[in-house]
Amino acid sequence: MNQVIETMLNHRSVRNFQDRALSKEQIEQIVMSAQAASTSSFIQAYSIIGVTDQSKKDKLAEVVGNQPYVANNGHFFVFCADLHRHAIIAEMEKNDVLPSLESTEKFMVSLIDAALAAQNAAVAAESMDLGICYIGGIRNNLEEVQRILKTPEHVIPVFGMAVGYPEKINDKKPRLPLDHVYMENEYQQDEVVFKKQLEDYNKIISEYYKERTGGKREDTWTGQIGQMLEKKSRMYMKEFVQKQKMDLR
Amino acid sequence: MNQVIETMLNHRSVRNFQDRALSKEQIEQIVMSAQAASTSSFIQAYSIIGVTDQSKKDKLAEVVGNQPYVANNGHFFVFCADLHRHAIIAEMEKNDVLPSLESTEKFMVSLIDAALAAQNAAVAAESMDLGICYIGGIRNNLEEVQRILKTPEHVIPVFGMAVGYPEKINDKKPRLPLDHVYMENEYQQDEVVFKKQLEDYNKIISEYYKERTGGKREDTWTGQIGQMLEKKSRMYMKEFVQKQKMDLR
Repeated sequence: MNQVIETMLNHRSVRNFQDRALSKEQIEQIVMSAQAASTSSFIQAYSIIGVTDQSKKDKLAEVVGNQPYVANNGHFFVFCADLHRHAIIAEMEKNDVLPSLESTEKFMVSLIDAALAAQNAAVAAESMDLGICYIGGIRNNLEEVQRILKTPEHVIPVFGMAVGYPEKINDKKPRLPLDHVYMENEYQQDEVVFKKQLEDYNKIISEYYKERTGGKREDTWTGQIGQMLEKKSRMYMKEFVQKQKMDLR
Repeated sequence: MNQVIETMLNHRSVRNFQDRALSKEQIEQIVMSAQAASTSSFIQAYSIIGVTDQSKKDKLAEVVGNQPYVANNGHFFVFCADLHRHAIIAEMEKNDVLPSLESTEKFMVSLIDAALAAQNAAVAAESMDLGICYIGGIRNNLEEVQRILKTPEHVIPVFGMAVGYPEKINDKKPRLPLDHVYMENEYQQDEVVFKKQLEDYNKIISEYYKERTGGKREDTWTGQIGQMLEKKSRMYMKEFVQKQKMDLR
């Protein structure tokens, strides 16, 4: 197993950072790595906002639900699905692009582009022995995030990423069994096998939580996920996205 | 600059592969790397289908528009945004999850999860000196892809990835200027600066195409993107996604 794969397999989210800022060079290497990721038909439909203004970081930490690692870290990035520059291009080039630009397809493209870039950024940071944590919690209130970051129409801040020197290293969370996530030639059709895999995984996760909490936490994965999904969270999203003129048709 | 970052900065899409299959071990390392990526609230909302059946690969190559590298490669992966297992979990755990599961928010989560996993897979493959190419072209006809791969409701095949031993190495495509994609504290508000950055980039891209084609191709980036976006491509997507019971509310 090579060093690149080892870096990726060693990933865990870090939520406690030392009070030490990233250098300009580190930030540039992270952003350059992000930019080197693939992009759908060369569209480059994302932007990255680095937040260094402490008052803005504090406000973002509030949106997320008072997570101190959003305010206190080595650097805070926000990754945006971004079709704004493409709307400007249409003005420059006198192309009629809005029917296509505001489609579900292009909404998907911009989300995927932002995520591909972000994952390269994450791997780059971890390769420098920095820790990272994705912050989906910025989607708790994108109206507010939009005010803080002044993002225009055709842009959606999709997640943040806190990066920094780890203060505390968490355990690695075991993933779903490989043969549950990875199938060959067609989707797993046998529901009995499918459920058996989930139950096997539940045992692994129960054991993991028990060990971490000295026997206190008894959770299974399916229990945890079922409960989480029962909560109707961020149900304003469709309205927000469409107000940004994305996913319209 | 470390080896991990070098691997990522060295990325280019490969579209010509040697006739040599990946080993089981290589495939496993790629999938394990994909699984190690971050996932929103531990939801793991994606699946990966490896396509080894040549007749299926040939059919997928047709969907994409007769791209030979979809049929001929070392391995072909399809990454799916997947909330199907979460619907099964709701049955197992007797949770009422559909209002949340079928929301725009969870649609976004599943797309992002699939993309984060895929980018780790891409970096893993490239770290083993394999080449990769993302295949967004499977979205040309997802009805057909769904028939080929037998994906159920709450699942959307989002892109393929051809992986293999490179036969031919392309040049690296220059990306947008770093300070165009990366901003600090707020979105770039000055449209004059914004357009200037795009024009500067146009010069770089024109030069790149000229060099590659011995002076024949005269394209700019904004010209190419404006024309591409004028085409109303994959406008069936919203209907397809909603038929899969995603992005409904």
